[in-house]
This record gives sequence, C-alpha cells and structure tokens, in this order.
Amino acid sequence: MYDFSADSADCARAIEAGLSDYLSGARLSGPGPAADRVVAAMRHGSLEGGKRLRPLLLRQAAAIFSIPRETSLLAGMAVEMVHCYSLIHDDLPAMDDDDLRRGRPTVHKAFDEASAILAGDALLTHAFAILADPACHADAEVRIRLVAELAAGSGVGGMVGGQMRDIEGEQGGFSETDIATMQAMKTGALIRAAVRMGAILGGADPRALSAMTAYAEAAGRAFQLADDILDVTATPEAMGKATGKDAALGKQTVVARLGLDGARAMLEAIVNEAILALRTFGPRADGLRATARYFASREN
Amino acid sequence: MYDFSADSADCARAIEAGLSDYLSGARLSGPGPAADRVVAAMRHGSLEGGKRLRPLLLRQAAAIFSIPRETSLLAGMAVEMVHCYSLIHDDLPAMDDDDLRRGRPTVHKAFDEASAILAGDALLTHAFAILADPACHADAEVRIRLVAELAAGSGVGGMVGGQMRDIEGEQGGFSETDIATMQAMKTGALIRAAVRMGAILGGADPRALSAMTAYAEAAGRAFQLADDILDVTATPEAMGKATGKDAALGKQTVVARLGLDGARAMLEAIVNEAILALRTFGPRADGLRATARYFASREN
Repeated sequence: MYDFSADSADCARAIEAGLSDYLSGARLSGPGPAADRVVAAMRHGSLEGGKRLRPLLLRQAAAIFSIPRETSLLAGMAVEMVHCYSLIHDDLPAMDDDDLRRGRPTVHKAFDEASAILAGDALLTHAFAILADPACHADAEVRIRLVAELAAGSGVGGMVGGQMRDIEGEQGGFSETDIATMQAMKTGALIRAAVRMGAILGGADPRALSAMTAYAEAAGRAFQLADDILDVTATPEAMGKATGKDAALGKQTVVARLGLDGARAMLEAIVNEAILALRTFGPRADGLRATARYFASREN
Repeated sequence: MYDFSADSADCARAIEAGLSDYLSGARLSGPGPAADRVVAAMRHGSLEGGKRLRPLLLRQAAAIFSIPRETSLLAGMAVEMVHCYSLIHDDLPAMDDDDLRRGRPTVHKAFDEASAILAGDALLTHAFAILADPACHADAEVRIRLVAELAAGSGVGGMVGGQMRDIEGEQGGFSETDIATMQAMKTGALIRAAVRMGAILGGADPRALSAMTAYAEAAGRAFQLADDILDVTATPEAMGKATGKDAALGKQTVVARLGLDGARAMLEAIVNEAILALRTFGPRADGLRATARYFASREN
C-alpha cells in the first residue's frame, strides 16, 4: 500500500539534503571559486521549504520502471532548482513584486535585486550542470535527453513563455483558451518535464512515455486549478504567500467563471482523467496516482 | 595565409543568420507555442550586433582538428546566446543600469524589465536546448560534455560568480588579486568555455585540451585588459556603450595602477603568452593566434 505522506516527506528530505550538499560551495566551483554572496542567495531561494512536488513526480515516474530513489535524486534536484529559480525571478519587483515566499522574505528582500537575479540565473545554469554530470546517469544518451526535456519545459514554449503570457494577461482581454494555454505553459510544462524525465530515466518506450505525458498534462491542470481555488479559499498564513491576487487583478480563472463548487467538480474530473491515463501500469504507478489525488485535496 | 577580417566577418554572418533562424519562433516552441513578446525581446538582445568573438574562438579551436565551420555553428550559437543573456541581465537597473548597448537601447529600455529578465532566462535555457539537439553533434557523449563545459563557464564559479564579485567590488576594498579573479570569472570563464567547447567538438586529447585551455585563459586576460584600456581611450560612440566607467567608480584596474603605457606593454606580453601556448599545433591554430593578436589591437 503506497503511503503518500511518508513518501513525499522522504522525497522532500532527500532533496533538501541533496540541494544543501550541492549548494555548499565546493561542488559549485568552476574555472574560479564560487562567489559566496550568490551561493548564499541560491541557498535562501531553494532550501528550507517547498513541497518538492516536481522531484516527487519525477521519482514516482521513474519508480514505474523500478528505478531506485537514489538514482532519480540528481535529476529531481535539477528540476527543483529550475522551479526555485523561476520563483526567485517571478517574485522580483519588475514581475510579481512579492515580499513573502514560503513565509519568509523573498530573495530580493533578504539580499537585493542584483543578487536575486544572479541567484536565479545560477540555479538555472547549475540545473543543467547536474544533469551533465555522469553521477546523474551513467549513459550520456539518457543525460542529454534529460537536458533536452528540462530545457523544453523551461523555455519560451514552456515556463518562461507562460510567465510572459501571464504578465501580458494582467492587462486583460485574455480568453478562456488564452488562460488555459498560459497556465499549461507556466505551471504545466515543468510538471510535464518532471514526469517525462522520470520516464526517460526509466527507459520508457514511446507508448509508455505518451501515457505518462497524458498523465502529466492532466496532473498539471489539476495542480493549477487547485492553486486557483486556494487563491480564493486559503489564508496567506496557510500558503506562506499572498492570496486573493487573482480576484484583485480580475483574472478570468476557472474559479471566476464556474464558482467554487463548479471549480471543485472540474478538479475532481481532471484528477480522474490523470489517473485513467495510468491504467496500463499497475501498482507501480500508485505513487503518481496518489500525487494526482493530493493535488485535489491539498490545503496549501 | 589566415585572413582574420574575412574569417571573423564570415563567422559573424553565420551566427547572425543561425540565431535569426533559431529565434524565428517555430523552432522555439515547447509543450506550448512560444510567447511572441519574449521572443521579440530575445531577438532584440541577440541580433544585429556583436562581434561574435566567442563563436569565432570556438570554431577556430575546432578548426585545429579539421572540424568544418558548419559543424561548430550550433555550439557557437549556444555560447553566443549565453553571452547575450548575460549582457541583457547585466544591463538591468538593479545591476549596471545601462541604457545603451551596441548603440541601441538595452532590452529593458526597448521593452521593459520583466521582458528583459525573461528574455535572458530564455536565451540561457535555449542555449542548453541547442547543445542537446542531435543536430549539434551526432555523439551524445560529445553533446553532454559541451553542456557541462558551458554550464561550468557560466555558473557561480564562472560568469555569474564574476558578475556578483564585480558588483561587490564596487563598494571598494578589492585587491589586485581580487580583481584578477573577478575578471577571470566574469569575462574569462566564457571565453575559456568557448575554446574548450571547440576542442571537445574536435575530440582533443587531454594534452591538447590543456594547451588550448592555457591559450584561452591568456586570451581571456588579454580581452579583459584591452577592455579596461578602451574604457579609458575610446569614445562611447566607438564602443556603442558608456565608457570611462571604471575611473568614475574608482576601480583598481591594471590601467589605474600601471598607467596606459604600462597596461599596453602588459597586454602585448599576455598576447605572446597565449600564442606560445599553441606552439605544438602548427598552421591550423593560426585562427586562434590571430584572434589573440586582434584582442591587443581592437578599437571597439
């Protein structure tokens, strides 16, 4: 019987320890010694917090192919570093201008804007350095596919493009389809990349990869819809960040259109869709199934 | 007889065309369609300008191993995209706060800060996407080594760390050694990566790679020293960016310590050092030799 709480806590601990070790400086040096201040800002922006859901999805996806946890740790750290870089940059005054993240000052508040920009840049850069390291996987072909997958999920056709569209959408005029595309890119693309990277680590054949991609796309929509619901229902204290922002900005989210009950019913349907995509995989996919269900029930 | 002007112009044309094609949008899509505004900002920050010296160094290094120009084009584009991303972020108000770059408005002036941050993030991301593409090189082992090399040169032990140190150094108190380390990281690390990536494309053995690394480190110091000299001697019009900044900030550059004549003599010595590192390679290294000489004579 798969225990979501235990497994997600174990994954969060492993990622926290792995990131803390990697970001201790020595392993970060390049042609020169790592600059202390930017390393401190990277640590502030990536340690002590976060549910580490993307690494969890990655290792649950890899588990379908009996890949041990340790083997998916470095690839999970790479995805999490990209997620953390995106939060640091999104929080900047020129973007969402947030002072609070996970209940703590954002990186540009704790340090300064220049350090926050550079810390984000560095986390993104070193995510690819980790994937290139033979310790991540012995086979160079697998590692380069991980690089391609992470870059595609993070680039202008994925996360960065989604953030750009989100900012443009704040000026209004976005249709229901525009919002769905934006959310699929901003949040969905990295979730999709995480699941697919797990499948790539596992040597998934094209048919399995396609099924897991369908799961990931539905799971990403569920995650985003849950986020939109929590923006209405949760307190800033529970979320560790400001809430009520969508309504204040007049964003045409699903919640704004269908109301809370309607949005919850749709969330349930999307979670079922994600779980159905995994029907050929048997009990080894219980982790991914549990995470999809968690998306519908999470409280922060 | 190697013709530096013709070869560097040819390289600049090839990189311009390659970047313009890659940044046309279609090839940039990921899970979603590329966001137009960020693509436009990426184009503004990377097209129509720049001497493309890093791709030139990369292809000259690859030429030692008889690698044809076309084969080093994509890796050269990747290095140039990293260089352009770093300029876009360094120009931001929170960093160097520059309005002018290559005689045109900087990206955050032509667009806005959010677009500039995202365009830089995207150029960095897609640099790795290009290296991961089998079109870059047929052998996954070579491609993943290129990823590792570019990440090491760009990260906290390289370019990003150097930029952080440069900002910290503006508060004063930097020794001669501190400045040398900062410059080796900020400018030298990516030049070093470019040369080494060319060597990796060429299948250099450890001995050849080591000699080319020695060349690259000297060439990087020559490039930086020439830049410090030009900051004193050149006009903003010739440089397409503000000059006289080091003196205004009281930076302890080599020029400030040795005077112009002393700095020029040292530049000559460093160029000779770079050329000596290539002594085993014969005429195929004439390109790299010419570029080192160009660093000492350039006027912008």
